[in-house]
Amino acid sequence: MKLNLENAASFACADKLAKLAAETAAANELLESGKGAGNDFLGWVHLPSSITDEFLAEVQATANLLRETAEIIVVAGIGGSYLGPRAVNEALDHTFGLNGNNPRVVYAGNNIGEDYLADLMELLEGKTFAIINISKSGTTTETALAFRLLKTKLEATVGKEAARELIVAVTDKEKGAARKLATKEGYKTFVIPDNVGGRFSVLTPVGLLAIACAGHDIKALVKGAQDMEKATGVDVPYDQNPACQYAAMRNALYQDGKKIEILVNFQPKLHYMMEWWKQLFGESEGKDLKGIYPASVDFTTDLHSMGQWIQEGERTIFETVVSVEKANKTVLFPHDEENLDGLNFLAGKRVDEVNKMAELGTRLAHVDGGVPNMLVTIPVLDEYNLGQLIYFFERACGVSGYLLGVNPFNQPGVEAYKKNMFALLNKPGYEAESAAILARLNK
Amino acid sequence: MKLNLENAASFACADKLAKLAAETAAANELLESGKGAGNDFLGWVHLPSSITDEFLAEVQATANLLRETAEIIVVAGIGGSYLGPRAVNEALDHTFGLNGNNPRVVYAGNNIGEDYLADLMELLEGKTFAIINISKSGTTTETALAFRLLKTKLEATVGKEAARELIVAVTDKEKGAARKLATKEGYKTFVIPDNVGGRFSVLTPVGLLAIACAGHDIKALVKGAQDMEKATGVDVPYDQNPACQYAAMRNALYQDGKKIEILVNFQPKLHYMMEWWKQLFGESEGKDLKGIYPASVDFTTDLHSMGQWIQEGERTIFETVVSVEKANKTVLFPHDEENLDGLNFLAGKRVDEVNKMAELGTRLAHVDGGVPNMLVTIPVLDEYNLGQLIYFFERACGVSGYLLGVNPFNQPGVEAYKKNMFALLNKPGYEAESAAILARLNK
Repeated sequence: MKLNLENAASFACADKLAKLAAETAAANELLESGKGAGNDFLGWVHLPSSITDEFLAEVQATANLLRETAEIIVVAGIGGSYLGPRAVNEALDHTFGLNGNNPRVVYAGNNIGEDYLADLMELLEGKTFAIINISKSGTTTETALAFRLLKTKLEATVGKEAARELIVAVTDKEKGAARKLATKEGYKTFVIPDNVGGRFSVLTPVGLLAIACAGHDIKALVKGAQDMEKATGVDVPYDQNPACQYAAMRNALYQDGKKIEILVNFQPKLHYMMEWWKQLFGESEGKDLKGIYPASVDFTTDLHSMGQWIQEGERTIFETVVSVEKANKTVLFPHDEENLDGLNFLAGKRVDEVNKMAELGTRLAHVDGGVPNMLVTIPVLDEYNLGQLIYFFERACGVSGYLLGVNPFNQPGVEAYKKNMFALLNKPGYEAESAAILARLNK
Repeated sequence: MKLNLENAASFACADKLAKLAAETAAANELLESGKGAGNDFLGWVHLPSSITDEFLAEVQATANLLRETAEIIVVAGIGGSYLGPRAVNEALDHTFGLNGNNPRVVYAGNNIGEDYLADLMELLEGKTFAIINISKSGTTTETALAFRLLKTKLEATVGKEAARELIVAVTDKEKGAARKLATKEGYKTFVIPDNVGGRFSVLTPVGLLAIACAGHDIKALVKGAQDMEKATGVDVPYDQNPACQYAAMRNALYQDGKKIEILVNFQPKLHYMMEWWKQLFGESEGKDLKGIYPASVDFTTDLHSMGQWIQEGERTIFETVVSVEKANKTVLFPHDEENLDGLNFLAGKRVDEVNKMAELGTRLAHVDGGVPNMLVTIPVLDEYNLGQLIYFFERACGVSGYLLGVNPFNQPGVEAYKKNMFALLNKPGYEAESAAILARLNK
């Protein structure tokens, strides 16, 4: 993975950038020492290097059991428990679902859509499926609802005994409803570590199991993260440390009024990596009335929707492009005898060569239009490089949050809607809130 | 369709809002009189009411021919030619693709992804498929590339003769490469009117044909738009005109520093309607260094990713919720004997009832957090109400762009990346640009 800041540096105030760059060492050191804000959630910092071959073998063995039996594997989870596995799987899966002998992986428990759940039940009708239930507490409304439906359906389909072998719980090591049920039913379980928050959890069983189920190489994924853990550590000086450089630059731009960061890909399979990134940075930095607003686009598709705004709208944005150097498959731009469309000058080229010129042309055009541009490049879209990318963004996020002066590891604002929802639904224990919200609505 | 501004009005400066409200009449009148900026692209204003039953029957008949023969229908197009049909189809399709006897509809020509195109060719291998090629000029790189590949593949699969019956061109009435080829090959064609821009084209054959192909009711869609055309016309006063009210409110909020509008759904099927909306407003207003940045989220999913930022980040955002009053299918919240997750207080409720309380709870929480909130409600997710929604947003966009003081109907910034791309690829006719860009890169 490479980071190129050339087209951003000219937009940043040199003094501010230098000051922030100097501060990254201390910020990165806080992640190491555990003396900063949110320090009970730093388990992700040395997570990659702590993962053993034995542990990965256990995850893989469980995945293999599910893969052998199930046509469909339903991953139930929300937040990082949804976006982590989906981001990696969609980056590596076939665009149109032709994944060979791999089971189909679908996602549930991340919304309260009645039509969505009805459609899911129809999909599963008459199918052998497995459930990975990812929930620390086991009481999150979205996921618990989906799990109730899925468990009932599975037991009705294969019987209560066989269902036990097709349900895996990824949950707290001892507490909570999901753990309790798993113990009682004898489900295979994996632990969500106490000190790793949802948005940093993709390299725990939260992500790894579902990724292995889809047929992807979790060893290579972890290896990529391990290498990036080394490449971004406290002993790596600023001018060689991509996490610190990215963190400093985005804060420098933010201080100069660049309020929105747009993460860009030119490879549609990276769509959900961008969604994962939005949670990572949005939840970590969007607090105390500050934080860069994280947005994303899929180019060249969205050049024909958001491109106009980016080129000529308010100059309050910057872009970070995640570029993949080589395509995995080969399609040549076809020759056409008649050439009515005038595109024969491209005939015989790899399609990706055209895409790369679209990418370079776009970056130059946006820079000319006043949009600072950072470039993150990986050589190829595979497990190893996704592992690098994941840890790079995680580490950069930790550093960046400390530079911003927030606690990057809490998310106090996520509770507000839940509290109102429970009050509106008359949840036991919310009697006072229910009365208050009813009074407010009837005003 | 209903619009509720109650939770936005308290955030807007009353004087500014009153001034903008007064200006909407003139802005709306400009759409009618055609005396405003961009007035050669006002064909969408009375498009719904100009659509005849004969025309819809012709579109439907063509769709039926393709539906009878093809297992897969590939819609090739970019910008509005992609987002228009996809937005409506995904809103109405089964979440997991179980669309009964309807052909599978897939999208191409909206990117330059080599892996994407390779995956598409694999999907089509050995399948009978049809192509809807949507391109005014026939020379847009993304779409022309995909069409070359698709045409070659189709001819190789079913022969040149049969292929002619399986290709429909939606293009200019007389000019351009796609029209020329269609005439030569004898393809069935439909016209993209000269005076309707891409982002306003979903109710032309650009959208209608692909929507009919997917098995949806284009008559009902158009009827919805027709009714909304009446409901937002110049003879409808401000206090009854949702397009004028929405346009005024969002401009008032923007003038007070609300720089980002987040379009929100609680129904995942509306995801691509939000993408369509982003193009509509982003391309119409993002120019002259101004314009609200259009963003979108799918709730409750994204409450667990972007929710934190929205609740507690910079107070420079407002939300517009598109709410669907009733779900189409029924799932009851299941009872669980053991109730380990403590959710039995929800047992027996419609899942959508819980979703609605999440929606209301979220709106209240975000308003409390300083986020102005507008609410657009449709009774049910069907063709008629999507038609209403589409025209509502189009009309509001025209009025809003004039209030902002831009030409809402051009998109000069979309050319910049193309010019660079062609220069980098040594396109004939771009020799000077090629030399210049090379010199710049080699500096």
